[in-house]
Amino acid sequence: MPHALTLISHPLCPYVQRAAIALAEKGIAFERIDIDLADKPAWFLQISPLGKTPVLLVDGQPVFESAVVCEYLDETFLPRLHPEDALARARHRGWMEFGSAVLNAIGALYGAPDEAALAVRAGDLRRLFVQVEAQLSDRAEAGPYFAGSDFTLVDAVFGPVFRYFDVFDRIGDFGVFTGLPRVAAWRTALAARPSVAGAVGADYGDRLRAFLHARQGALAERARAMPPPAPAAAMPA
Amino acid sequence: MPHALTLISHPLCPYVQRAAIALAEKGIAFERIDIDLADKPAWFLQISPLGKTPVLLVDGQPVFESAVVCEYLDETFLPRLHPEDALARARHRGWMEFGSAVLNAIGALYGAPDEAALAVRAGDLRRLFVQVEAQLSDRAEAGPYFAGSDFTLVDAVFGPVFRYFDVFDRIGDFGVFTGLPRVAAWRTALAARPSVAGAVGADYGDRLRAFLHARQGALAERARAMPPPAPAAAMPA
Repeated sequence: MPHALTLISHPLCPYVQRAAIALAEKGIAFERIDIDLADKPAWFLQISPLGKTPVLLVDGQPVFESAVVCEYLDETFLPRLHPEDALARARHRGWMEFGSAVLNAIGALYGAPDEAALAVRAGDLRRLFVQVEAQLSDRAEAGPYFAGSDFTLVDAVFGPVFRYFDVFDRIGDFGVFTGLPRVAAWRTALAARPSVAGAVGADYGDRLRAFLHARQGALAERARAMPPPAPAAAMPA
Repeated sequence: MPHALTLISHPLCPYVQRAAIALAEKGIAFERIDIDLADKPAWFLQISPLGKTPVLLVDGQPVFESAVVCEYLDETFLPRLHPEDALARARHRGWMEFGSAVLNAIGALYGAPDEAALAVRAGDLRRLFVQVEAQLSDRAEAGPYFAGSDFTLVDAVFGPVFRYFDVFDRIGDFGVFTGLPRVAAWRTALAARPSVAGAVGADYGDRLRAFLHARQGALAERARAMPPPAPAAAMPA
């Protein structure tokens, strides 16, 4: 009997997108319920011990933590998005965790109080992507994905990572990807993948800009200094 | 052919202990190399992209991130420490991540600048263990471990968590486990498990006290106010 799957989500959460991408790659139907992370409903806190999205409900049973949701999906539904070899799979899992460290560095970029701190934190981000570039150089195949021609869970992690920069690039040139051609090509390939593109709503960019506008710090200040999006783009469809 | 396994470690690192416990439970021989996390060797930074312990070298190939090391070991060597059922396994993996959140809360306890902050952060820790108590109440079996009579990877995560409190209990009563009998019994059972007891050196308590003494903050101040360990205990064996 097929499982009834519900993904408890937030429209901007990059961890939710990992699960949504894995589900799309496997062609699995699921219901998506967005919650307000600024005002978490009581039923959500009952199923998410750390109060974080995503939670995947499998016939009503909660699976929490994005990496855990991805592993569950990969063990349960074909096609496999992890390598078959245990050591290769461990390497992929390690680089998924590395993707979480990149997300933390993006959070630190948001939190930079002034332009000097912003430059330091952009440099931290760049150093992480220099390590990614070295990994991509070690591929047996040319690409376009993390391990070559097959889309994997590492790709599902980095698709949402790169998506932030589609908004950041309009705010300023932070030099994060300068001189990193394999990372830049990977970013382009992931943006074109239907599962990655479809993991967020059409209003994602506007939502992220609105989120940035409402914050403190140097990045928010730069975002507020930009012209607002054209009215048509800001209107709900 | 058996693999040559080397665990790159630090004497106090709770994440290293997870791997050491899993290796011991599986009866696997391995070499352990301690490094100085305050002065990381260049060869270590080459194999640990985020500069963290543990790294498991498998015939020279690095596996990084503690959860990834545990999964690799569990997929490669018997006996399995994860449940056979995919949904139960996902639940276990989620509670392993919860154990990492408890470690972060212990780090926040260290960082409390004054007694008021110390009390707040002890309360945060207690709230996490209240959630653990509820999980233990839901067990089909009575214990003594997370899932009943079988030792699992969740136990390997919480053994090192509880070990901190053996030192904290000598510094003060923070009320973290008051009224949580199942958590208290689990703590006792884990301390008695040979794999857990053997995952650190005999000088662990002295090392953790020395680490605390050297820090800023309310917990360090309390630790410094205590009488030093007896000379015999402070001497290398």
